[in-house]
Amino acid sequence: MTTSREVRLKRRPIGLPTDADFDLATVEVGPPGPGEVQVKNLYMSVDPYMRGRMTDRPSYVPPFEIGAALQGGAVGEVVASSAEGFEPGDIVSSMLGWREAFTAPASHLQKIETHGLPIQAFLGVAGMPGLTAYVGLTRVAEIKAGDTVFVSAAAGAVGQVACQVARLKGCTVIGSAGGPEKTAFLREIGVDQVIDYKAEPDLKAALKRAAPDGVDVYFDNVGGPHLEAALDRARVNGRFALCGMISVYNSEQPEPGPSNLALVIGRRLRLQGFIVSDHFDLAPSFVDELSGWIKSGQFHYRETVDQGITAAPGAFLKLFNGENTGKMLVKLV
Amino acid sequence: MTTSREVRLKRRPIGLPTDADFDLATVEVGPPGPGEVQVKNLYMSVDPYMRGRMTDRPSYVPPFEIGAALQGGAVGEVVASSAEGFEPGDIVSSMLGWREAFTAPASHLQKIETHGLPIQAFLGVAGMPGLTAYVGLTRVAEIKAGDTVFVSAAAGAVGQVACQVARLKGCTVIGSAGGPEKTAFLREIGVDQVIDYKAEPDLKAALKRAAPDGVDVYFDNVGGPHLEAALDRARVNGRFALCGMISVYNSEQPEPGPSNLALVIGRRLRLQGFIVSDHFDLAPSFVDELSGWIKSGQFHYRETVDQGITAAPGAFLKLFNGENTGKMLVKLV
Repeated sequence: MTTSREVRLKRRPIGLPTDADFDLATVEVGPPGPGEVQVKNLYMSVDPYMRGRMTDRPSYVPPFEIGAALQGGAVGEVVASSAEGFEPGDIVSSMLGWREAFTAPASHLQKIETHGLPIQAFLGVAGMPGLTAYVGLTRVAEIKAGDTVFVSAAAGAVGQVACQVARLKGCTVIGSAGGPEKTAFLREIGVDQVIDYKAEPDLKAALKRAAPDGVDVYFDNVGGPHLEAALDRARVNGRFALCGMISVYNSEQPEPGPSNLALVIGRRLRLQGFIVSDHFDLAPSFVDELSGWIKSGQFHYRETVDQGITAAPGAFLKLFNGENTGKMLVKLV
Repeated sequence: MTTSREVRLKRRPIGLPTDADFDLATVEVGPPGPGEVQVKNLYMSVDPYMRGRMTDRPSYVPPFEIGAALQGGAVGEVVASSAEGFEPGDIVSSMLGWREAFTAPASHLQKIETHGLPIQAFLGVAGMPGLTAYVGLTRVAEIKAGDTVFVSAAAGAVGQVACQVARLKGCTVIGSAGGPEKTAFLREIGVDQVIDYKAEPDLKAALKRAAPDGVDVYFDNVGGPHLEAALDRARVNGRFALCGMISVYNSEQPEPGPSNLALVIGRRLRLQGFIVSDHFDLAPSFVDELSGWIKSGQFHYRETVDQGITAAPGAFLKLFNGENTGKMLVKLV
């Protein structure tokens, strides 16, 4: 018998979550029954969208249950298997993160072909965040060479991929992030114009300087003032891929939307929301293309890695303080 | 020599325009020179978009000039012609409204094939407002039979066409308008669920009652609380055709946008602005289809007609007070 520590939702957070909203528990993990696999998690993911699941309201994924382990992306190693096609040592991904180990039906697992990439990349650049960036730009916003593309939260898990996909597809890239470390990272990955929004008293003016001829595509991770600035600078027939609005996820009161939304009409803008899980069909071609870019040295990425299951709630909270550069991960062994 | 009275912009309105923002002047209209045509206007149009042209700011059409005659859609009769293809008695449309008569190059005129419709219809249901409704539903929102379609300002020039195009294309139609006269008219034209927004303390609740299963398509003429309510009720993969935001046209201060814009993401909504002049290629098929519907008694429409050039500023102001049902026109002879 193996034991596993897991993080549970103690109560539904109000506003910004705190450590007190989470519990750590130790459970026993039984051996795999027929068709089951036992997995030791190596890395787990924390993502902004999880905040939505902590609130009890209708959404595209059901809310987390109070007193139960949280869920989320994880990569791990098979330690025992009673399921065909899975052997000890296999590397698998699952949505059974926030715990050190588990036994589950094989249908909950996906074997990873690493294409030579480190396994935790499949929680980040090569996983859901990376695919989100790729889908948003190529399918939703339909970028084409020559477009000027603005990316908010550009040094985040999704943003860092969006910036580089846009660059590698022949676009001019403007990236916004907060603080000198992140903006330096954006310059390293070839972002053409970098905005440090924390240092800018007037985001609209900053974007105007960065994109004097306007913006064709906006990849929105944050909503709020960034969305308003992007509307202000949008060119005729601009396309906005709306991916996340982290600026409002913790709001207790409804936040007003952009006051310049009427620009959508005169400029014939298209604002389109999307969820990556509708577009998993693009995953194989994305991982193919991405691993080629990484191997040839054209694509770079960062991770922020905290250590140990007890650090997981804190790692999640860092997302809302902007403390992570690139994908935020928790290493579990 | 003929004289013509014309309405000029005296000064740029601040907030809601008033009569004092306009001047009436009398000018002489010379005989047509080579390639020119002299026209007596029969009807002129007043439209909400004209408010934007009264303000001096960049937009998709240049601002009106202070001291010059306003412009806008008009239909009239040729009284003299020195241009090939135009004969006295021909019915023509132009953008030279807000005046009783004019002489202009033939390139400013379009001859109207009436398809048996009254000529003023070409300023309304068969003209730009009607085409706007048709383009927004068929090309922008891509309605299909079975969709639930919500239309705001549904008894207006654009709205009355949008409601009926949606109905005739097999959709369930919810229309919002203000007051008993307009809502009665919506019932006459076959709108399935009618909302009197002036009588509803809670527009979101009213729309929820009217569309318990949600809304697939929203045709937005007004912005503001209607847009917020439509977002609230939008179904997954909903499409919003953003045509106008009359609720904010007279705002001196920026009005906050909808506080629930983040719903665009989880529900994978597409919000798309459009301008009818990008879509004139659809006009012939639209007028064909429309005139068939009118002749067969499947399509009804209303006009609100004021009399005489001196009534034109007042007719324009009625648009913002919601005093018109259907297309607002001024009869000039």
